[in-house]
Amino acid sequence: MKVVALAGGVGGAKLADGLQSVLPPGDLTVIVNTGDDFEHLGLKICPDVDTVCYNLAGLNNPETGWGRRDESWHVFQAVKQLGGPDWFALGDQDLATHLERTRRLQAGEPLSAITADFCRRWGVTASVLPMSDQPVPTIVLTEEGDLAFQEYFVARRCEPKVTGFRFENILQAAPAPGVLEAIAAAEVVVICPSNPWVSVDPILGVPGIRAALMEKKVVAVSPIVGGQAIKGPAAKMYAELEIKPSAAAVARHFGGLLSGFVLDQVDEILTKDIGIPTLITGTIMMEREQRTALAEEVLSFARGIK
Amino acid sequence: MKVVALAGGVGGAKLADGLQSVLPPGDLTVIVNTGDDFEHLGLKICPDVDTVCYNLAGLNNPETGWGRRDESWHVFQAVKQLGGPDWFALGDQDLATHLERTRRLQAGEPLSAITADFCRRWGVTASVLPMSDQPVPTIVLTEEGDLAFQEYFVARRCEPKVTGFRFENILQAAPAPGVLEAIAAAEVVVICPSNPWVSVDPILGVPGIRAALMEKKVVAVSPIVGGQAIKGPAAKMYAELEIKPSAAAVARHFGGLLSGFVLDQVDEILTKDIGIPTLITGTIMMEREQRTALAEEVLSFARGIK
Repeated sequence: MKVVALAGGVGGAKLADGLQSVLPPGDLTVIVNTGDDFEHLGLKICPDVDTVCYNLAGLNNPETGWGRRDESWHVFQAVKQLGGPDWFALGDQDLATHLERTRRLQAGEPLSAITADFCRRWGVTASVLPMSDQPVPTIVLTEEGDLAFQEYFVARRCEPKVTGFRFENILQAAPAPGVLEAIAAAEVVVICPSNPWVSVDPILGVPGIRAALMEKKVVAVSPIVGGQAIKGPAAKMYAELEIKPSAAAVARHFGGLLSGFVLDQVDEILTKDIGIPTLITGTIMMEREQRTALAEEVLSFARGIK
Repeated sequence: MKVVALAGGVGGAKLADGLQSVLPPGDLTVIVNTGDDFEHLGLKICPDVDTVCYNLAGLNNPETGWGRRDESWHVFQAVKQLGGPDWFALGDQDLATHLERTRRLQAGEPLSAITADFCRRWGVTASVLPMSDQPVPTIVLTEEGDLAFQEYFVARRCEPKVTGFRFENILQAAPAPGVLEAIAAAEVVVICPSNPWVSVDPILGVPGIRAALMEKKVVAVSPIVGGQAIKGPAAKMYAELEIKPSAAAVARHFGGLLSGFVLDQVDEILTKDIGIPTLITGTIMMEREQRTALAEEVLSFARGIK
């Protein structure tokens, strides 16, 4: 069964990993948000692409959620000793990814081709596609002014109150090669439990992607559980935008795009007004087996939707 | 006694370190070749500046001659695993220097200011000045065509037969701020035992530097001992340019610029035709104490020249 997953950071990467382990090689394409990509120390950093790839390759750091396991920090320490920027921590092995990606981008290769090659070398069997080869930087509109995403997320720790979002140059961006083809071939599209505002909306905003998804059976997994985000600022963003954070709010966020919705059992009471088929199950993926179990449940649920 | 040293790579860095340890803080300025600077992995790398700074800071790797002591190689290994270029080995701590330097260059700071700040943080008491803030890339003319210096030196291991040298854009380059002032204030200028063709000649070729040196007491230390270079391709270059490699050839290379010449005792027999005051002593610096001893001898010799 051909499946497309839309994913942002940690939660999305976990479910994408679960889907990869229950699907035959070649059946899964993961389309990844690049709105939070940025430049740091002159290097192109793609946090969501890397988190997804590291998870699919089994290279991810299970404690932090980002970066690589068995990581060392020699470069970062030495940069700090030189008075360099220390607000964004870069591990040594992770840095190699950014260095080699930047080198190849500067040599003219598109991000999608570089990502595919890295995945091949890391032994990833799923296809991982950035949503676009063109940069679409997410700007967080806040009461303290417009902030580049990583400045809001890392440097300011999501503290400024959000008033909206802007995805720069998105109308000039095109889906990366293979994105529309993968969606067209998919029997099921899974929107992974990633931040709807800053992980999924950028993907949906690339011209052509939303329209392609409207033809498909799309199932979203709520990243909001019990009114809280498992990780990250999704719930805080809903509240600041004066929407009560809940699984139901996530379902309404995606609206007519969805054929089905998956939410955690702690939220059962909130589902009555969603109006589409729901799967209520344990969605929190602490252990690797929970990724696989959720992936199997989501696919089985999606298959059953008429 | 104000002293200026001209230095390239390892040999120059060792004597510069010796001079730093025998002179009061503030009395030594080291003007360093930047002709072998290049870009690698998108980073600006200044091999001679770094070798000099690491030696002056006591951070140098005594076994390799280049790079830092107690170095790790996590990034380089991970870049190789991604299929990235592996012809130029970069240690983790060394990489931090290149990353932070590149970041600051891209932010608009000149190389000389960045180098001064790094030296301050590393506890270097000498002033280290790149010869110029403008890039002056050394091109090695060979029987196999023109090669960028690091391609000749590292990737091709100095194998192609040399026919000449070109220092690109050198006529448009200016001495870095402080270079001419340091020379004007110097009582003695020491040309350290660095490659005359590719370490010293680029410095001498920056407009204004040779003319300023002509006013000064300049003493050179031969990098050729017993017809061989202690390190690097200097002797091979002389031979390929049909000049018998010898200390005398080095003295003739610098010609009328020199007020005195220092050569190793194994070369005593070759000095009769130099025609300027000579100091014949042990010039090989294996141990740290030998750096200090040679520095003291060279300064004492220079002081005695009328």
